[in-house]
Order: sequence, then structure tokens, then C-alpha cells
Amino acid sequence: MAAEQDPEGLAAARPLLTDFYQATMALGYWRAGRARDVADFELFFRRCPFGSAFTLAAGLRDCVRFLRAFRLRDADVQFLASVLPPDTDPAFFKHLRTLDCSEVTVRALPEGSLAFPGVPLLQVSGPLLVVQLLETPLLCLVGYASLVATNAARLRLIAGPEKRLLEMGLRRAQGPDGGLTASTYSYLGGFDSSSNVLAGQLRGVPVAGTLAHSFVTSFTGSEVPPDPMLAPASGEGPGVDLTANTKMWLERVCAILGLGVQEPHPGERTAFVAYALAFPQAFQGLLDSYNVRRSGLPNFLAVALALGELGYRAVGVRLDSGDLLQQAQEIRGVFRTIAAQFQVPWLESVPIAVSNNVDEKELTRLSQEGSEVNVIGIGTSVVTCPQQPSLGCVYKLVSVGGQPRMKLTEDPEKQTLPGNKVAFRLLGSDGSLLMDLLQLAEELPPQAGQELRVWPRGAQEPCTVRPAHLCEPLPSLAESRALAQLSLSRLSPEHRRLQSPARYQVALSEKLHALVDSFHVEGLP
Amino acid sequence: MAAEQDPEGLAAARPLLTDFYQATMALGYWRAGRARDVADFELFFRRCPFGSAFTLAAGLRDCVRFLRAFRLRDADVQFLASVLPPDTDPAFFKHLRTLDCSEVTVRALPEGSLAFPGVPLLQVSGPLLVVQLLETPLLCLVGYASLVATNAARLRLIAGPEKRLLEMGLRRAQGPDGGLTASTYSYLGGFDSSSNVLAGQLRGVPVAGTLAHSFVTSFTGSEVPPDPMLAPASGEGPGVDLTANTKMWLERVCAILGLGVQEPHPGERTAFVAYALAFPQAFQGLLDSYNVRRSGLPNFLAVALALGELGYRAVGVRLDSGDLLQQAQEIRGVFRTIAAQFQVPWLESVPIAVSNNVDEKELTRLSQEGSEVNVIGIGTSVVTCPQQPSLGCVYKLVSVGGQPRMKLTEDPEKQTLPGNKVAFRLLGSDGSLLMDLLQLAEELPPQAGQELRVWPRGAQEPCTVRPAHLCEPLPSLAESRALAQLSLSRLSPEHRRLQSPARYQVALSEKLHALVDSFHVEGLP
Repeated sequence: MAAEQDPEGLAAARPLLTDFYQATMALGYWRAGRARDVADFELFFRRCPFGSAFTLAAGLRDCVRFLRAFRLRDADVQFLASVLPPDTDPAFFKHLRTLDCSEVTVRALPEGSLAFPGVPLLQVSGPLLVVQLLETPLLCLVGYASLVATNAARLRLIAGPEKRLLEMGLRRAQGPDGGLTASTYSYLGGFDSSSNVLAGQLRGVPVAGTLAHSFVTSFTGSEVPPDPMLAPASGEGPGVDLTANTKMWLERVCAILGLGVQEPHPGERTAFVAYALAFPQAFQGLLDSYNVRRSGLPNFLAVALALGELGYRAVGVRLDSGDLLQQAQEIRGVFRTIAAQFQVPWLESVPIAVSNNVDEKELTRLSQEGSEVNVIGIGTSVVTCPQQPSLGCVYKLVSVGGQPRMKLTEDPEKQTLPGNKVAFRLLGSDGSLLMDLLQLAEELPPQAGQELRVWPRGAQEPCTVRPAHLCEPLPSLAESRALAQLSLSRLSPEHRRLQSPARYQVALSEKLHALVDSFHVEGLP
Repeated sequence: MAAEQDPEGLAAARPLLTDFYQATMALGYWRAGRARDVADFELFFRRCPFGSAFTLAAGLRDCVRFLRAFRLRDADVQFLASVLPPDTDPAFFKHLRTLDCSEVTVRALPEGSLAFPGVPLLQVSGPLLVVQLLETPLLCLVGYASLVATNAARLRLIAGPEKRLLEMGLRRAQGPDGGLTASTYSYLGGFDSSSNVLAGQLRGVPVAGTLAHSFVTSFTGSEVPPDPMLAPASGEGPGVDLTANTKMWLERVCAILGLGVQEPHPGERTAFVAYALAFPQAFQGLLDSYNVRRSGLPNFLAVALALGELGYRAVGVRLDSGDLLQQAQEIRGVFRTIAAQFQVPWLESVPIAVSNNVDEKELTRLSQEGSEVNVIGIGTSVVTCPQQPSLGCVYKLVSVGGQPRMKLTEDPEKQTLPGNKVAFRLLGSDGSLLMDLLQLAEELPPQAGQELRVWPRGAQEPCTVRPAHLCEPLPSLAESRALAQLSLSRLSPEHRRLQSPARYQVALSEKLHALVDSFHVEGLP
């Protein structure tokens, strides 16, 4: 039944997808009579990933789906009873069975917003026992989603707006749902499409793909298609034998390229013809199963030209090994030569797709001025975020029963900002980001055009700022993606840099600063 | 229904969890009349991760579950129809609807086995169209599982057999199932337990946990437990007011430690009492919410001693910041002092648990001779495998219709080994590993005690080897875990090293070597 109600079933987290200590603490709160105390938690991160000056907030839709469905089933409660002390009061388990999120309030940065250190991505309020149980699943749903969206945004910034970026990292992800999360949120971050079909089915991410070497090497050349005839694209006129026509074109192509007609691999050519018969409107060739120059390229050209006679246009070639940039330049040159020779101008601009462990450095190279690469498939580097494979979000208690709470600890970085807070994004008159301001919920909101005295985080002194605008943005996946691109466009050039020493400022209101100070001054009571 | 049949529902992959090119190739095979050609694929990796000399094979149980349930539903086929060309023959979609894995054969290294480069983890045979569709999900299910199991095994080798290792990385994983996979396979690799409750419920992984700072900071000290009375552990005699008794013990502890009785935080102490009332048999304290030495430790001792009077033994303390090793030594010293002072010897050996971004380097430090740390919680470093976040498994076609296939390419590392193969693990007379031997399925199996001429991979010359034993190991999760530990014990000391320049040898039979050679000699036809 639950699966019926949730069409994205597989992807949703379950209530027991949590750390065991949430359950032990739940019992502790319950035994102390505090299960229903009203508590406020904030979910935030302490540093932007990858040395970036920005992070994209993501995962909110998964959180909402999780919270809506949150309910411990009998089997869940039975399992908890089996791992908690045997003498635990049965009334506690009865209480667990009644829980849902109907009394939980969540405020969140819209999916695709820019997010900065210490500014909450989620603010979760509700009964202490319930909002404590939510910690781990919310961290799990937000952390990686935001990390991979940010990583994708960096790759988009490197590639520029023109290159088509295909995410193809499913096989390198942390299991099925790691892949689904990666595909969804790399699209949000600025990729054009994903190879992951499930992400298309469940999340509406555009899917794309070519063919693999196994398809090519599965053919020896002796295979005969059950029906080798192909009708013209217009639907008018007789069909032709594509195998025979390809052979004819191969001779002409080899003569121009100075190759013996025996050199291109017959199995590869048969594979290309088979693919063309299945996809006459979307023929593409994978060129490097045997030898690009002597086999893959002439075989592709022969099939593409035979299709061209029938009014079909090949949609691309793909390379998966060797020097991708250099080969793309050579292939484009051959396309131009052949296009001129046979007066088929469309051939000049057949897209060239490349893949093979493309990382930020290689992407920079492939995106350089004059590059003939059009489509770039990225797997491992986008999905695993090898530069920093986790964002390190935390979920901290900031108030109980309206009273602020603060973790002091001896590690200043691990200290929290107490109190129920509201964040404002201050914009300049040109719409550029000035800073994020955190203040207590009880304070009056800042006014556009009015000077404010604020305490930038980490600074010893306050400063003044006069925002021209205050912003609160909006959210489908496509809208969030648009928002992500808009968000990124609002960053100053120095904050857009991939290694940005310049940090975007996050500041505290006077009153919040004073509250933090009072915790420090009072110290231990 | 499907969810009912599969109690691990959420974790299983769906058929559409695949790359789109598998679907386009499926259409290509079908159009070429080759959907039912019998094909053999091998799933393997090219290099052990993290610079190790070994890899642990894992993920097989997920593959088996996936293969058993494999069937495209109407909604799946409809989605594929929506993304494939609109003029695709409807008979193709009818064919898809009939597919299952009843004609697919899988041979696999048992879960928990040692695996080496080029030696198949899975060998998958069956109708070409179906086994092609399986590529991405199988890679996704095996790659990360094996990576994280290997990572966990390295951490276990560093920690030695005595330390208890707790996996707690759910919040840093790639979404819900990334976390479930990580918890399951880090247990397989040698961890003792996981914080992930769902991994306990669905996979039988032992769960463990303590409490978080939010529990401690949620108390101010003014809270009064609804029932502060606790009966003795024996069940005999009157109950006592634990809050009052803790206060009394606090005075005695502070006097010995030279602290003012006002210094320890009253909220922290109230939290500890609340936790002790809920878990009298399993009381533990998180010491660093305010100040370990002046607050967390005396508060813990006061509660532990009050419990001790009633016959209960505290089960541990936890630190989550600062110099973990140094603090553990100091805490153990205080335990000894207090144990001697109040003649409570059990206090001396209360386990000390630590966490806080523990990586291989920090684990080495925490595991050094004389360390007083007993339990180590590891999250990010085990789950994200930051040293190398993907294993890079591949799935390659090795034969069709019994005829060997080979991808040559210009990149020697990407070349495949052709033909349907069998792998043997050759053991010396002492049970140590000699090498893995790959040969063609048609060859006679090697005999124990008989000299063999083989070609180690990468070598220019053959060598001879005389195995005393040939091994084929066995697989529940617990059995696989035992196998993993057994597997690791079979490695020579140089292959157990975390950065091992010595590679375990993988060799080819004469006949397989000759086949590879013939592909090279023939080159392009």
C-alpha cells in the first residue's frame, strides 16, 4: 500500500534509516517526560565543499517525501524492541507506534538556492522525540544531494554554457539509490541529461545514451540482418539494402582517406549497420573498439553517408579512450574533408561525444577555445565527488521550549549558534549578493534601504551594510534547476571561482551576537 | 506484491536502474535478430583500490536478489517506449515484457573472497539482449559493495583484532541506500557493528549507539524526571532517588578531582541521570558537550557511582572532539584513581569510545600500543572511501555463441581477455595463496601437485608453478564475514600491507595466452 502511495517508492527513506542512538535518546526523552517538549533543530554545514565559495542546497524534495510518509510500522517497533533493553516499558513502544510528522514544521532553503556555512538549509521544529529521530535521515537526504549538485555546478561552470554534459555515473555510485540521487541532483546542478533510466522514469531527468563496446564486439561481420532494407526518411520511394549501400560508400571513403577497404573491421561495420537499422533517425557510432582512424571512423562515415542518401542525419560519434581533445580535432577535420568531397554539409557538424574518466582538469582542457568536442560524458568525477566525498552537514539543537541551547565544546568549530533563527539574504541594488544575515526569530526583519549593524562570522568587529533588496526565492525539479543557474549567476566572479579564497560573508545580528557572547561569558554555570 | 515477496524491498535495484544505452543496444540486438544469441560477460576490476594488494568481493547477495526479481513491468516498458524512437516496432516492447533471468547463469566469487585484478567477480551467461541489460545494475551492486568491504578490511587490519569498530557513516553516504550498502559491507569487511538501524532490521548487522550532544544540551538542570526512583539491579530491596544519590556522589568525586561542586554543568548531569533511568543496565556518557575534565567526566562518574551502589555497571563513555588518544589516557587515569578511592574495581575498565573524523592515519594512532581507547566510531572515512571513492569495475563481453570476443582498442589497459574462462586459486602446501589462474572453460582443470606452465599477467615469459591445493571457497552475511577474515589471513604479510608494492600474481593458461596472442597477431582482419 505504501508503495502505491509513493510512486518514487524505492528512493524514499524509511523511519528506521537512522542511527541507533536516535532510538536510545528517544527512550531517554520519553522516560524523562520530555517527549513532547517543543524543540528546534537546524541543519547546516560548516564549510563549502571543494574549496568553493558556494554550495547549492538540494535534497529538499526527498526530505518532504520522507516526512510525509514518516510512520513506524509494527515491524519497525518490534525491531527496536529487540535491540533496546528487554525491561523497557511497553508504553514507550506504544508511543512510538503513534508517531508521525503532523506536528513537525520545516522551513527550508528552496532546492537550488545558494547556501553558505552556518546558514540553515533546514529548520525543523516539533516534539523533541520526533525531531530527534529525524536527524540522521534528513542529514542523509540533504548532504549528498547538495554535495553532488554543487559538484555538477562546478563542472558546468568549467564547461561553459555550450557543451552538453551527460551524467553517466550510476555504475560508480554507492548502490542503486546513490545512483538515483546522483543523477537527479547533478541535473539540478546544471547537467543536461543522465544515462540513468530510472532517474528519467522517477524524477523526469532527461535520459541519453549511445552504445557500448560490447555491442560492437558482439558482431564478427558474418551476421545477416533479418531485414536489411531501409525506407527513405521521407517515407516516399523504395527502400534500399543498407548493408550493400554501406559497402559502396566504404570504398569511396577509404579511397579519400588513403585506407585499404579491408582495413575497417567488418564486425564493427555490421554493428553500425545494425544500430542504424534500429535507429535510422538517431544513428551514432562508438569509434574506438578497434582503431579509430583505420576502422571506427571510416565505418561510421560509410554508414552515415548511406543513411544520408536516404535523408537521415547521423546524430553523433563517441570516443572512450586515448587523447579525446586531439582525436576530436582530427575527426572534425575528416568530417570537413568528407563533407566537402561529397557535398554533404550536415556531416561537418555531427556532434562529437567523449568520455573516459573526465575530471575537472580534463574538462577544462576539453572546454578550451577551439575544442571540437560537443558532448562530454562524466561518471565517476561527478558521482563520487572525489575531491571531497561528503559535505559534512550537521543537525543541531538550537532551542527547547523557546529557550536557546548551545553546544560549547573545546573545539570552537564545533560550537553551535543558539536560538531559533531566521536567515535573510541581503542583495545590492544590482541584485548581487551582499551577505546572509542570521538573526533571532523574535527580532524585527531587516528593511531594504536601511543601514544595519551586523557581525560577520569570524570577525572581531561589527560592520554596517545597507541592502537594496532582501530575497526569498521559489521551487518542480526543472524549476529548481533554473533556480540553481540563476543562483550561480548572482555570485560575483571571485565567488564563482573553483578555488575561491574569497569567502561569501555570513553575519549575525547584534542581538544574536550578544546571545552567543553571553554563553561565552557565562561559560559553565 | 513485489514488496511483500522481497522483505528487503527498498534495497533491491529495479530493471530500469540501468544506463539508457543498454536499452538502445537491446533494440539494436533485437532488430538484428540477435536477442537470443548466447553471450558470456565477465565483471572484473583492473586494479585493487587504495594501493592494496587485495580486494574483498562483495555485493553478490544483492545481485542474486536483483536477478531473481528481474522483470520489466508495464510502466517500465511504457517509459522505455517514451524515450526510444516513436517508430520503434511494437513487437520489441512485447519482447521486453517477456524478459526474466530464467535463462541467465551466473558464476561468482563467493561474497567475502579475495579478488584480484582481471579475475572475474561475476561471469554472466545468457541471451545477449538480457545479459546486456544487466550490465549497469550488476556493476552498481558489486562495485561499491566490494570497495567499502575492502576499505573496512584495511581499517580492521590497522586497528588489530581487539578494538571494537563501529560504522556510523549513514549521514555521509550517497542517500538512503548508499548508507545501507555501506553498513552491510563494512560489517562484512570486519567492523563489529553499525549505527544504522535499517541495516540491523534488513540485513542482520549488529546495531550499536550512544547518545548525541543534542540529548545533553536539551537539559538545563531544572527538569524533574516523572519518576526519579530506581530499583537495585538484583530486584531486591527498596528503590532510591537517583538524582539525589548522584548529587551526593558528585560532591565526593569533585573533592577528589579538586573541582568545585558548581563546575560540572547541571543540565549535563540531569541528562545523564535521565539516560541512566532509561538504561540502568547500559548507562553511558557523552563527555564533551561542555568541558570533559571539569564537567562531562565528574558528571559521568557521579551517575556511574550512584548506579554502581545499586549493582549496575556503566558500559562506556564517548568523546567526539579534541585529542582523542590523549584524553582517553587521562580518563583512564581518572577511572583508576576513583576506582581505587571508592574500591570499585569495575570502573577501571569502563570502555572508552571515540569518534571525530577518524581516518586511517588517526586510527593508526588510536590503535598504538598502550592506547586506552576501546571502541572507535568511523563514519565518513569508511563510507565514502575518500582515498578512492570508486572501484572501477567493468563488465565485458568475452564470447558470443561460444566464439571468443576481444576489445583491442589503442589503450592496452582497456583490452579484454577473450573467451569463456574459469579461474582457479592455487594454494601452497601451507594453505597460502600462490596465484590465481585464468584458463579457458574448455581446458582441463589443473591438478594439485602437478606442475603447470603459466603466463603471469604483464610478464613477457611463462613460469612454472606446482600448487599443493586448489581452492573454491563457500557463503549468510555472517559466513561471508568469516570468510573475509579467513581470506585476509591467507594473504602473505607483504600483500596485507596497506600500500603494497608487491602484487599478487594472476596468470593465464598457455592456451588462453595463445588465444590472446592470436588476436594480437591477426590484428585487424
